[in-house]
Amino acid sequence: MRTGQTHLFIPGPTNIPESVRQAMNVPMQDMRAPDFGALTLGLFDGLRRVMRSASAEVFLFPGSGTGAWEAAITNTLNPGDKVLMSRHGQFSTLWVEMAERLGLDVEVIDVPWGQGVPVAEFERRLGEDREDAIKAVFVTHNETATGVTSDVAGVRRALDETFHDALLFVDGVSSIASIDFRMDEWGVDLAVTGSQKGLMCPAGLGILAVSEKAMDASTRSTMRRAYFEFSDMRKMNADGYFPYTPPTQILHGLAKSLARIEAEGLDAVIARHHRLAEGVRRGVSAWGLDLVAAEPALYSDTVSAIRVPEAVDAREVIRIAYEEYNTSFGTGLAQLAGKVFRIGHLGDLNEGMCLSALGIAEMALARSGVRLQLGSGVAAAQAFYAFGTEARERIALAAE
Amino acid sequence: MRTGQTHLFIPGPTNIPESVRQAMNVPMQDMRAPDFGALTLGLFDGLRRVMRSASAEVFLFPGSGTGAWEAAITNTLNPGDKVLMSRHGQFSTLWVEMAERLGLDVEVIDVPWGQGVPVAEFERRLGEDREDAIKAVFVTHNETATGVTSDVAGVRRALDETFHDALLFVDGVSSIASIDFRMDEWGVDLAVTGSQKGLMCPAGLGILAVSEKAMDASTRSTMRRAYFEFSDMRKMNADGYFPYTPPTQILHGLAKSLARIEAEGLDAVIARHHRLAEGVRRGVSAWGLDLVAAEPALYSDTVSAIRVPEAVDAREVIRIAYEEYNTSFGTGLAQLAGKVFRIGHLGDLNEGMCLSALGIAEMALARSGVRLQLGSGVAAAQAFYAFGTEARERIALAAE
Amino acid sequence: MRTGQTHLFIPGPTNIPESVRQAMNVPMQDMRAPDFGALTLGLFDGLRRVMRSASAEVFLFPGSGTGAWEAAITNTLNPGDKVLMSRHGQFSTLWVEMAERLGLDVEVIDVPWGQGVPVAEFERRLGEDREDAIKAVFVTHNETATGVTSDVAGVRRALDETFHDALLFVDGVSSIASIDFRMDEWGVDLAVTGSQKGLMCPAGLGILAVSEKAMDASTRSTMRRAYFEFSDMRKMNADGYFPYTPPTQILHGLAKSLARIEAEGLDAVIARHHRLAEGVRRGVSAWGLDLVAAEPALYSDTVSAIRVPEAVDAREVIRIAYEEYNTSFGTGLAQLAGKVFRIGHLGDLNEGMCLSALGIAEMALARSGVRLQLGSGVAAAQAFYAFGTEARERIALAAE
Amino acid sequence: MRTGQTHLFIPGPTNIPESVRQAMNVPMQDMRAPDFGALTLGLFDGLRRVMRSASAEVFLFPGSGTGAWEAAITNTLNPGDKVLMSRHGQFSTLWVEMAERLGLDVEVIDVPWGQGVPVAEFERRLGEDREDAIKAVFVTHNETATGVTSDVAGVRRALDETFHDALLFVDGVSSIASIDFRMDEWGVDLAVTGSQKGLMCPAGLGILAVSEKAMDASTRSTMRRAYFEFSDMRKMNADGYFPYTPPTQILHGLAKSLARIEAEGLDAVIARHHRLAEGVRRGVSAWGLDLVAAEPALYSDTVSAIRVPEAVDAREVIRIAYEEYNTSFGTGLAQLAGKVFRIGHLGDLNEGMCLSALGIAEMALARSGVRLQLGSGVAAAQAFYAFGTEARERIALAAE
Repeated sequence: MRTGQTHLFIPGPTNIPESVRQAMNVPMQDMRAPDFGALTLGLFDGLRRVMRSASAEVFLFPGSGTGAWEAAITNTLNPGDKVLMSRHGQFSTLWVEMAERLGLDVEVIDVPWGQGVPVAEFERRLGEDREDAIKAVFVTHNETATGVTSDVAGVRRALDETFHDALLFVDGVSSIASIDFRMDEWGVDLAVTGSQKGLMCPAGLGILAVSEKAMDASTRSTMRRAYFEFSDMRKMNADGYFPYTPPTQILHGLAKSLARIEAEGLDAVIARHHRLAEGVRRGVSAWGLDLVAAEPALYSDTVSAIRVPEAVDAREVIRIAYEEYNTSFGTGLAQLAGKVFRIGHLGDLNEGMCLSALGIAEMALARSGVRLQLGSGVAAAQAFYAFGTEARERIALAAE
Repeated sequence: MRTGQTHLFIPGPTNIPESVRQAMNVPMQDMRAPDFGALTLGLFDGLRRVMRSASAEVFLFPGSGTGAWEAAITNTLNPGDKVLMSRHGQFSTLWVEMAERLGLDVEVIDVPWGQGVPVAEFERRLGEDREDAIKAVFVTHNETATGVTSDVAGVRRALDETFHDALLFVDGVSSIASIDFRMDEWGVDLAVTGSQKGLMCPAGLGILAVSEKAMDASTRSTMRRAYFEFSDMRKMNADGYFPYTPPTQILHGLAKSLARIEAEGLDAVIARHHRLAEGVRRGVSAWGLDLVAAEPALYSDTVSAIRVPEAVDAREVIRIAYEEYNTSFGTGLAQLAGKVFRIGHLGDLNEGMCLSALGIAEMALARSGVRLQLGSGVAAAQAFYAFGTEARERIALAAE
Repeated sequence: MRTGQTHLFIPGPTNIPESVRQAMNVPMQDMRAPDFGALTLGLFDGLRRVMRSASAEVFLFPGSGTGAWEAAITNTLNPGDKVLMSRHGQFSTLWVEMAERLGLDVEVIDVPWGQGVPVAEFERRLGEDREDAIKAVFVTHNETATGVTSDVAGVRRALDETFHDALLFVDGVSSIASIDFRMDEWGVDLAVTGSQKGLMCPAGLGILAVSEKAMDASTRSTMRRAYFEFSDMRKMNADGYFPYTPPTQILHGLAKSLARIEAEGLDAVIARHHRLAEGVRRGVSAWGLDLVAAEPALYSDTVSAIRVPEAVDAREVIRIAYEEYNTSFGTGLAQLAGKVFRIGHLGDLNEGMCLSALGIAEMALARSGVRLQLGSGVAAAQAFYAFGTEARERIALAAE
Repeated sequence: MRTGQTHLFIPGPTNIPESVRQAMNVPMQDMRAPDFGALTLGLFDGLRRVMRSASAEVFLFPGSGTGAWEAAITNTLNPGDKVLMSRHGQFSTLWVEMAERLGLDVEVIDVPWGQGVPVAEFERRLGEDREDAIKAVFVTHNETATGVTSDVAGVRRALDETFHDALLFVDGVSSIASIDFRMDEWGVDLAVTGSQKGLMCPAGLGILAVSEKAMDASTRSTMRRAYFEFSDMRKMNADGYFPYTPPTQILHGLAKSLARIEAEGLDAVIARHHRLAEGVRRGVSAWGLDLVAAEPALYSDTVSAIRVPEAVDAREVIRIAYEEYNTSFGTGLAQLAGKVFRIGHLGDLNEGMCLSALGIAEMALARSGVRLQLGSGVAAAQAFYAFGTEARERIALAAE
């Protein structure tokens, strides 16, 4: 029998703060009541602030982030439209697949998993596209499978420097509200996220923020769609209502989690994610293991994908952690299956939780046959959390 | 400030039983954990039992019933396919609209709101369709806007008697788990519902049950779809997992509500809905008001749409109930706006709640200017609840 | 199997508002944490406001109201002290019994159940007590067993007019936060309540408010006590802490319920209790049944004890309500067993709930063999709730 | 703003398992309902099993463990009775103090804090007491202030070997349901605990288990008492009811926590506490710090009191943990204030939580100026948790 707290270190869905759970534990209510709209309108405002956009149109579709991907495509593009995407992890791969299924002509650039969006190559292709055949560029801001954060601002620059008019779409599912994301500054036309990552709610809402330019495109899109129709949603949303029954509990949870983010401060939230992630990375480094992410500039502050030695099956590490230590780590997906395990470090998190992630991982790794010094990763993280940049020095000192 | 229990009498989302709320109030968990699948597999079994099907394929899409409508269409039909539908209330109208948007050739039969699906007319059209051009017949089992339950078994007989091969689709959103529904016996090919009505959970799941015949059709469907793709879902569902993040809290809630239904007994659940609804109807009759439903055979056991006298605006009744008595009634939709208010009487309900619905309605009606004897509807319902068929006699007796 | 909302109409513990339940559903915390004290200090302030006292010392003992009774006695009186009490219901009887067990010399005045504290007789005795042998006068503000509210202000006047120095103790368990109570204005020296009535929390806290005069007496009391020792509690309370582990969840709940009371306004809370109770009483009157309370001046706004006809066993009414209608009424206690059932109408309550209490009671009464017109009590309450003082007129009008 | 899980490592109140929190989050109910008694009767059985007693009378007083101490004394002893107690920590000291306040003649044996009950000295005194003047011997099974577990079985042997008839009272507040406790086998006459430690519920219940011999003594006790009267409670308890309002929510929680204990197995619960505690102790040893407990035989499996170096104020360690790391450790009490901090390791706990306790303590210690190697304590605990008795070897191996 499992006892004690569950240690959840997957890269989403994430730990739900108690106050958010409380806010959601409400009796059912009438989603057509006169005072219901105010709740929703507040969420639109709060989400714009989280995405750093002054005026984006925000949509909350009952569904998942995958549904929001579909809404993004079917509302703004046309069958046969050319789009530019890169494939550098499982989630970017799935998005490509969806785009193809939905009838887009996808120009895919494959880069090794562990790399990010190939900004220079994107720029080259955009530069070559004199007739603006490319209607949209898709960027997976944070590739959850590999723990790689890509350079959205770089893609914007590529568009600008090639004077290209394509829409800029961003999958921010595992970045928004955790990693710096600047919708207006970066000229993002459509950002997609879900309720269950940085927003610290249960899964159940696919969230989109849409620029005026993309909203304008949506009026001309001829793709077949019904459930994910922007115009129906927008009409009802004007007063805070929905064209069909929304998951009201999550709306209340989201109101609370947005309030938490504002109370902590968005910049502080982002800084905390960076600090906690950096501690985890120092731990991994102390173990002598490698991240999938190819270089520091690509390191994700929400998830670390950690390669285990070749002789070891990462699934065994995950199994031990789950069965023996009531702990969930993320598994390696597709080509990374068995080769990596992932530590999700996003959402409602603190230092002690990261230490337990590292400490449990060490036990599971050691028991799986990985040679490492127990406590070594924990110590590296502790030094950073407790003494910051002076950390290395302190460890040396203490070890004397 | 509002005090006391909220009285929720809309036809969905419905009151969530405390035990279901408890079951949902769990910390977040890993939807890829080895023991997660068992939860989902149990739900498929339970839902089949609720739909009285031995072998239907069940799908749980994060979304709403509207999403499930779309999944039904896009997975099994082809662009331009002819389908037969009737329009006899707001929800059947919306389904027609969606079918048209998604590219179907809809043969619509309009009947007055308050009537049900025109079975005889359906049979005539099916009989005329010698080449089986009609690929599917759509039936709104319970039209929530008018409180009308249609004769699904009759439509099956119409198909059988015309030797027609069309698929039989049923919108069971406001009937399943409340009103008798027999998927296998009636030869239903595809039934759609949501988590937030008879299943007593929050909104957030679009639920489908699909016959072998419809599953077979789905392998040939050429409609564009991605999020609602049956085959992706089926592949992952085999072990109880999902292709994208499911709303785990609702899954736990659904497990509990299915357990409640089994504990009460499905037949008992249906009988209870009938009994409670009949009490409400006797109350309405005592007021001297009419239901929208044209005749007793059509009366819905989940919702009653009640016409107010012409001089009165039903929205005023609803407003008073909401503002003064912490009570939500359903509003009149589209052509019924202002003319009716609706009492939802489905899900987790008992006699005392129905009495309070009637009692509050009486106060709101009286204050809106409707001439009625306070307590008269309550008394009629009480007599039926307390003494059943002997009720009329008892009232006479008591009043002596 | 029980379905639907539970209808709780006992005179405590009372329905807990959802927001209070949410506030209590917190993880365990350290009751010695540096920021814990602020929570408690806020409760002391809030409770003083509810008791309308500027400066009373407030104590929160883990326990029940019965424990608070004991704390009141053992901290302020001495073995053999003479006290004046009346016995006019089960709870006043139990308090007398406790006083005797704890070694007080109780001068008891028995009055028929249904009467209140005999103010004139109290005045006579106090007048005769020239040597101030009587150290304290005990008043049960609201006798929960009979639904009788006594005249505390009258007892104060009796003390004043006889220039008597006795302490004035008030059992306000079922009155405070529901019925007007004025600690300072009435010169109450010690008031006792619990968390589970007007304060809308679970049982678990015995609450006292103590005047300076009674605190002073407590420094000289020689009764043996330990757990309920004021001085230990006071010392730790100064910073908001406790000498032993407090029930922190209830403290959080109490903070929320006090906030609710302030938001509604204490005067509005009291007025609402009066209005809802008056509706219930009009219902009882319409049934042709009598209250135990002897006259309108004694009617309690928190509980009505209703006599059933002699041929009927009130326990049968209660049994039917519980088993058939998921409803709890209060039972008749001691000499009233089988003769009365009680409707508790305090705490988190509204009109619809009172109508369902009356409606369910009518069904249970009718099924128990009481001759009454179903709906008659509901109608009387509705008329009052919907039209107030014009009610009688309206009923006549409507019935034409 | 605090983010992430709260790390609660005080020796009670302890972390409440989610399933217990769920079980408690119920609407209020009638504690006089016909089916209420079954709940309580099940608790009595379950608590007897946890205390390993076949027939003890169990009492659940609304209150705290301190209240249960008082109930134990006032129900079974008489004013002036001689009792034998030892003072070896803050809680045994407080119990002595209470016994004196309540009028007992306490023969106190003071032993240094860090020692346990002086069994040999007890035996000597009992041997000298030829006339059985000593009516009861009080043993604090687990002294929470010092982390010392005493030898209750030894005290029983001392009584037996001196043929002494005194009652044997045990304070099991921080041992029962966590550390092996055998009421019948050890001939314990009265055991006291609370709901908020090994029983994993909120504070709010003082729990007693009473032998037939002590129940017999209670019929002759002349101490003044009312609230804590066994006979009133016993009479109502016979059918599962209470003489005054019980905290029903905690009763539901207790039913769930007892079910959890049975599901895990009481022996397994005790073994888990030992294993987790041993890991923590190895961590402390790796830091080079000392426990207050004088020797391994005395080590408590529920709490470790850890001495900090003289130059450091332990309150600073606790402050840093609380303010910076959202973590609560226990403070040093009375003569240990500033000299120790305590890690509570009881109740709903697992390995990962213990590692985070050690990891956070290391950061707080290091930041307070304690010289230790970060990660060293964690590593020692990990080695034990992951490899058990082979641990030492493995560390050596890994470090090569």
